[in-house]
Amino acid sequence: MELVFMIPLAGLAAVFYAAYLAWDVLRRDEGTPEMQDVASMIYEGAMAFLRRQYGTIAALSIVTAIAIGVIVGAVSEGVKDILASGGSVTYGDRQVSPWEEGGLTAVAFLVGALCSGLAGYIGMFIAVRSNSRTASAATRSLKEAITVSLRGGAVSGFLVVALSLIGVSSIFLIYSEVLGNPKSIAPFLIVGFGFGASFVALFAQLGGGIYTKAADVGADLVGKVEAGIPEDDPRNAAVVADLVGDNVGDCAGRGADLFESMSAENIGAMILGVSIYAVTGDLEWIVFPLVLRSFGILATIVGLASVPFFAREDGKQNAMTPLNNGYFIVSALSVIGLFVTTNVMLGDEWWRFFLCGVIGIATGIAFVYITQFYTSGSWRPVKEIAVASRTGPATNIIIGTAVGLETTAATAITISIALVASFAIGAEATISGDNGTISGFSTGVFGTAVATMGMLMSAAYVLSMDTFGPITDNAGGITEMSGAPESARHITDELDSVGNTTKALTKGYAVASAGLAAFLLFSAYLDKVKERLEIPLNDPLPIDLSDVDVFAGGLIGAMLVFVFSSLAIRAVGSAAGDIIEEVRRQFREDPGIMAGTSRPDYGRAVDITARASLRNMIAPGLLAVGLPIAVGLTFRYVREDNDGWLAVSGMLMIGTIVGIIMATFFNNVGGAWDNAKKYVESGQLKDDTGQVLGKGSEAHKAAVVGDTVGDPFKDTAGPSLHVLIKLLATITLVMAPLFIP
Amino acid sequence: MELVFMIPLAGLAAVFYAAYLAWDVLRRDEGTPEMQDVASMIYEGAMAFLRRQYGTIAALSIVTAIAIGVIVGAVSEGVKDILASGGSVTYGDRQVSPWEEGGLTAVAFLVGALCSGLAGYIGMFIAVRSNSRTASAATRSLKEAITVSLRGGAVSGFLVVALSLIGVSSIFLIYSEVLGNPKSIAPFLIVGFGFGASFVALFAQLGGGIYTKAADVGADLVGKVEAGIPEDDPRNAAVVADLVGDNVGDCAGRGADLFESMSAENIGAMILGVSIYAVTGDLEWIVFPLVLRSFGILATIVGLASVPFFAREDGKQNAMTPLNNGYFIVSALSVIGLFVTTNVMLGDEWWRFFLCGVIGIATGIAFVYITQFYTSGSWRPVKEIAVASRTGPATNIIIGTAVGLETTAATAITISIALVASFAIGAEATISGDNGTISGFSTGVFGTAVATMGMLMSAAYVLSMDTFGPITDNAGGITEMSGAPESARHITDELDSVGNTTKALTKGYAVASAGLAAFLLFSAYLDKVKERLEIPLNDPLPIDLSDVDVFAGGLIGAMLVFVFSSLAIRAVGSAAGDIIEEVRRQFREDPGIMAGTSRPDYGRAVDITARASLRNMIAPGLLAVGLPIAVGLTFRYVREDNDGWLAVSGMLMIGTIVGIIMATFFNNVGGAWDNAKKYVESGQLKDDTGQVLGKGSEAHKAAVVGDTVGDPFKDTAGPSLHVLIKLLATITLVMAPLFIP
Repeated sequence: MELVFMIPLAGLAAVFYAAYLAWDVLRRDEGTPEMQDVASMIYEGAMAFLRRQYGTIAALSIVTAIAIGVIVGAVSEGVKDILASGGSVTYGDRQVSPWEEGGLTAVAFLVGALCSGLAGYIGMFIAVRSNSRTASAATRSLKEAITVSLRGGAVSGFLVVALSLIGVSSIFLIYSEVLGNPKSIAPFLIVGFGFGASFVALFAQLGGGIYTKAADVGADLVGKVEAGIPEDDPRNAAVVADLVGDNVGDCAGRGADLFESMSAENIGAMILGVSIYAVTGDLEWIVFPLVLRSFGILATIVGLASVPFFAREDGKQNAMTPLNNGYFIVSALSVIGLFVTTNVMLGDEWWRFFLCGVIGIATGIAFVYITQFYTSGSWRPVKEIAVASRTGPATNIIIGTAVGLETTAATAITISIALVASFAIGAEATISGDNGTISGFSTGVFGTAVATMGMLMSAAYVLSMDTFGPITDNAGGITEMSGAPESARHITDELDSVGNTTKALTKGYAVASAGLAAFLLFSAYLDKVKERLEIPLNDPLPIDLSDVDVFAGGLIGAMLVFVFSSLAIRAVGSAAGDIIEEVRRQFREDPGIMAGTSRPDYGRAVDITARASLRNMIAPGLLAVGLPIAVGLTFRYVREDNDGWLAVSGMLMIGTIVGIIMATFFNNVGGAWDNAKKYVESGQLKDDTGQVLGKGSEAHKAAVVGDTVGDPFKDTAGPSLHVLIKLLATITLVMAPLFIP
Repeated sequence: MELVFMIPLAGLAAVFYAAYLAWDVLRRDEGTPEMQDVASMIYEGAMAFLRRQYGTIAALSIVTAIAIGVIVGAVSEGVKDILASGGSVTYGDRQVSPWEEGGLTAVAFLVGALCSGLAGYIGMFIAVRSNSRTASAATRSLKEAITVSLRGGAVSGFLVVALSLIGVSSIFLIYSEVLGNPKSIAPFLIVGFGFGASFVALFAQLGGGIYTKAADVGADLVGKVEAGIPEDDPRNAAVVADLVGDNVGDCAGRGADLFESMSAENIGAMILGVSIYAVTGDLEWIVFPLVLRSFGILATIVGLASVPFFAREDGKQNAMTPLNNGYFIVSALSVIGLFVTTNVMLGDEWWRFFLCGVIGIATGIAFVYITQFYTSGSWRPVKEIAVASRTGPATNIIIGTAVGLETTAATAITISIALVASFAIGAEATISGDNGTISGFSTGVFGTAVATMGMLMSAAYVLSMDTFGPITDNAGGITEMSGAPESARHITDELDSVGNTTKALTKGYAVASAGLAAFLLFSAYLDKVKERLEIPLNDPLPIDLSDVDVFAGGLIGAMLVFVFSSLAIRAVGSAAGDIIEEVRRQFREDPGIMAGTSRPDYGRAVDITARASLRNMIAPGLLAVGLPIAVGLTFRYVREDNDGWLAVSGMLMIGTIVGIIMATFFNNVGGAWDNAKKYVESGQLKDDTGQVLGKGSEAHKAAVVGDTVGDPFKDTAGPSLHVLIKLLATITLVMAPLFIP
C-alpha cells in the first residue's frame, strides 16, 4: 500500500493547480469595454442557463435518489457475503441490511451527482470568463492567446478529474473505514456514485447539446439564410445564445461526460479488483485504479505547463503543434507512472498489466490520428465530400453518409484489438495468495480495466484541449462583435480552427473510453447477477446465446440507441424553431435592429433557448432512464423470473455496441461535413476547368447543407450517446436487484 | 405423413399457375408501335444486364462451390451421429465421410444458386414483357391495367416460391431417400442450398440495387437538374437504363431476397425439427415446413385470382383497395391452412403451434400497417418532413433522419413480441415419444419457426405486389415516351403510386421475415456448435455473455453492417458518375439529341450502367463473404481454439440485430423522403399564409434533395442488408467446421 498516499496528494495538487490557473486567467486583461460588454452577456446567459439546468437536474436527482433508496431497500435482500462462493475471506460481523444498502446507494448517487455538477459549474464559470481575456490577448500575440485559452480550459479539465478522484476515494473511504463495511463490499455500495454521475451527465449533455445546436442552427437559418447577414453579426438576436451554447455543450456537457467515464471506470475496475483481492487479501487490487489516476494527474500538470514552451513567439507555426507536443509529454509521463504503479502494486506478474496499460495509452493516441484522418481537410474523406458538393446538396449528403458509415471500421477494429489484447495479456497472469490461485477470466477482465485506466490517464489534458474549443470560439465571436482589429480576428480564427480539431478529437477519445468503460461495467453487471444467483464469479452464466429473451432485449437495446438519437435530433429542430420565431419577432417589431440603430434583446433569446432546450431534454432523458427498467420488469414478471436479467443483459450488451458505433458515425460525419464546408471556403475546391468554387458558389451552398445537417449529429446525438452507453450500464448495475429473482 | 402429398401438388400447381399467367399476359395486346419500340429497348437492356450479371454470379458460384467442397471436406471430421447426445435413435450403418459432406454441401450450394437464378431470370423475362401490355391496357381501363400488371408480377412471385419449395424438397428427398442418409442428418447437409440462395441473392440484390439507383440518380442529375428536361424525357440517354433499373432492383433483386428468406427458413426449421424428431421418431416434424408452405401457395393462388373481382369497372376507387382485399383473403386462407396442417401433423399440442403460426401471420399484417404509417403521405411522419422542407434541404434531411431513426421502434418491438410470444407458447408444449420427452428450449424455438413459416405463407402474394411496382413504373415511362393519350398517363400514374406503396410494404415484410429467419439460423448455428463440441442440444453453451471475444465479434458485426452500407451507397455514387459522364458526352457530341432530331444511344448508356454496377458490387460482396470467415479464423488461430466460434457468434448475433435495425432505417427514411416529395408535388404543403408550396417552389427543391438522398438508402443499402443478414447466417452455418476445434 506504499503508493496510496498519492491519492490525496494528487487530488489536492489538481485542485490547487486549477485554482492557480483560474487566478492566473482572472487577473489578466479583460479587453476593451466592447469586449467586456459582449463577454458579460455571454457570462450572464451561460450562468442563467446553468442555474436553470442544474436546478432541474437537482430536482430530478433528489426524486431519483429517493426512488433508488426505496427500490433497492425494499427489493434487495441485502448484500450477501458476495465472495462466499469465490474465496473464503471473512469480514467480521458487519452485515448490511437491505435498507442500509438502499440508503447508502442513494447517498452515493447524490454525492456523484453533486461532484459532477460542481465540476461543470466551476469549469463553466472560468471558461466564460476566459473568452474576453483570450480575445484581448489575441490583439497582442498568438502565444498569449493560446496560453490564456488553454489555461481557462484546463480549470475545467482538472476540476473534473480531481472531483472524480476525490469523490470516489472519499466515499470509498467513508463507506469502508468509517462505516465499517468490508472493503470487498464497499465497491458495490458506491456504484450509486457512478449512476449519479451518469444521471447528471445525461441531462447536462442532452440539455447542453440541444441548446448549443438549436442556437447555432436557429441563428444561422434566421440570420445567414433568411436575413442575409454574416455569422456572429450583432444584429442577430440569437448570436449571444449561439456563443453561450458553445460553452454549455462542449465545456459543461463534455466535462460531465468524461467525469462519468472516469468515475464509472474507477468503480467498475474496483469491483473487478474484488475477485483478485478475495484470493490475495491485498487491498492494492482494489485501490489501484485510484493510485494510477493520481499519477495521470501529475503527468498532465507537467504536460500542460510545457505547452507555452512549444509555442513560438512569432506565431509562425501550426497552433496545433504545441498542443500535440504537450499531449505526447503527458503520454510519455503516463507510461512512466504506469510502470511505477504496476511494478509496486500488482505483484510478481505486474509487467503483464503494465503492457495492458500501454495498450490503453496507445489506443488513446490512435484515436487522435483516426479522428484527424476522417474529419480533417488534409485527407481523402473530407476532400471526397467537398468534391461531391459540386453536384449539389444531395450528393454531399450521400457521400458524407457513406464516409461516416465507413469511419466505424477503424473505431470498431481499434477498440476490439485493445479489448482482446489487454484481456489476453491479463488472462495469462496467475495470481496466488492465501486463499488460492486466480487466473484466466478474472485477471483478463482486470487487464482490460488497466487498459481503460491507461487511456484515461490523459483525460484532464484532453478535456483542457476540449474546453479550449468553446473559449476560442467565443473569443472569435467577441472579436467580431466588438469590432476588434483584423489581426486579432486572424489569430482567433486560427485558434478557432484548432479548437474545432480538439473538439473532434475529444469526441473520438470519449467514444473509445466510453466503450472500454462500458465493457467493464457490463462485466460488473454480470458479476452482480452471479452474486445474486450464487454462481462463483469465475464461472460463466448458464445461458444460451440464442436465448430468445437476450435476442429480444438486444433488438430493443439497438432500437433504444436509434430512438434516443431521433429524439435528440428532433429536439434540436424543435428548439431551433422557437429561436427562429423569436428572432423574426424582434426583427419585425423593431426595424431599428436591422438598421443597426437599436440593439436586439439578446437576453430574451437566451432565455427562450434555455427553456426550449430543457423542455426538449425531458423525453429522451426519461426514455434512457425508463426503458431499461421497463424491459427488466416486463421480462421478469410477464415472462419468467430469470428472463428479466437476461433481457437486460442483451439490451445492455447490444445497446453498448450499437451506441459506440452510432456515436462514432454521428461524431465523424458531422466533423467531416463541417470541415468539407471549411475546405470549400478556403478555396481549395475547383471544378473540372480549374475554376475555384469558393464562398457563395453552388458547391458552397451544398456544403453548408451538409454542415447544418451534421450539427445536431455531432454535437447533440453523438455526445449524448456516449453518456447513454454509460448510463445504461450504471442504471442496470444499480437496479439489478429488480431484475433478478 | 398424410399431408406430404401436398408438396409436389402445390409445387406443380404454382408452376402451372405461373405458366398460365405468363401465357395470359403474353397473349395480350402489346400496344402501339411506339410503345413496343420503347418496351423492346427495356427488354433488351434488362436481358443484357441479367445475362452479364448472372454470368458473373455463375462464375463466382462455381469457384465458391469448389472452395466449399474442399474446405468442408478437408476440415470437417464428418457429420457425427449428431443426436447421439440428445436421444438414442439409430440410423443404420450409413456414415457420411468428410469429403462426401463437402461434396454434398457444394452440390446443394449450386442447386440453390441455380434455382434462385432461374426464378429471377424467368420472372424478369415476363416482367419486362408485361410493361408495354400494361401501358396498352391503360389506354382502355384501370381494371385491365391492374389485372395485366399484377399477373405479370405474379409470374415472378409464384416461380420464386415454387422453385424454393421444389428445390428444398427435391434435394432433401434425394439426399435422404436416394443417397440413403438418415433423415435427421439430411437437413444439415442441405444448408448449402440456403448458402447458395444467399450468395446469389447478395449479388443480385447488390448489383440490381446499385444499377437501379445509379441509373435513377444519374438520369435525374444530368436530365432534370443539368439539362432541365422532365423525367422520362426521351432525349435523356439514361432514361432507358432507369426503366431497366426498376426491374433489376425490385423484381430480380427482391425475388432473390425472398427466395432466400423462404429457403433459409425452411432449412432452418427442418434443422430445428430434428431435435423433436429424435424424440418422437415422427418425420412430420422435419417435413412440416414444406407442407405448410404448400398450403400457403394454394391460399395465394385463390387470393390473387380474387383481385380482379374487387376492381371496379369504372375505376372510381383507390387502386390499393383490390390489392389489400386480396391480401386479406390470402391471410384468412393461410389461417385455415395452418389450422389443418398443425392439427394433422403436430401431435396432441398442435394448437400451441397453430397459435405461433397465427402470430406470424399477424406480424406480416402488422408490418403492412407500420410501413404505411411511416412512409405514406396520409400520416404525421411524412407530413412532418414535408413541413421541414419549407426551411430548406438541411431541415428536410435532419427531420427525415429523425423520423427514420424513430421508425425502428415499431419494427424492433413487433419483432421482439413475435419472437418472444411464439417462443413462450412453443416452450409450453410437451412432446413425448419412444425416446423420451422434450419441452422448453427446443419446442420454443420450433414455435418461433412456425411463426416465421406463418408469416411467409403469403410470400408469393407480397412478391407479386412488389413486381407489380416496376411493371407499372415502366408502363408509366412507356406511356410518356411513346406519347400516349393523357387518360392513359393518368391511369399509369395512379398505378405507379400504388406500386410505390407495394414496394415499400414488401421491404417491411422482407425485413421482418429476414429477422425471424435469421433468429432460426442463429439457433441452428449454435446447434451445430453444440453438435461438434458434443454438448446435448437442449443444454446451453458454457460461455459467458461478457466474454471479450463475443463482445469484440459483436463490435465487428455491427461495424460490418455500417461499412457494407457505406460501400453500397458509395457504389451508387460511383456508378452514377459514369452514367452522367456518358449522357453529357452524348449531348455534347450530338447536338441533335437535345433538339429532338436524333435519338440518343440508349443501349450504350444501359451497357455502361451494367458494367459500372457489376464492378461496384464486388467490394461489398467480398466484404460480406470474407469478413465472417476472416474473423472466425483469426480468433481461432491468433487467440485460442474456442474463440473462433465465440467471436463468430457475437458477430452473427449483433450483425443480425444491427442489420435489421439499419435496414428498417434505410428503407423507411427513403420511403418517407420519397413520399414527402410527392406530398409537396400534390400541392398539399402550404406556407404560414396559406399559400401552396408546390412543384418548383424552394420547398419542393428541398424535398427533392431528401428524395435523392433516400434513393440509395431505400433501394440499395436497405434491401442489400436484408440479404446480408441471411448470408451471415448461412455462411457461418456452412463454414462452422472451420471455426470450431
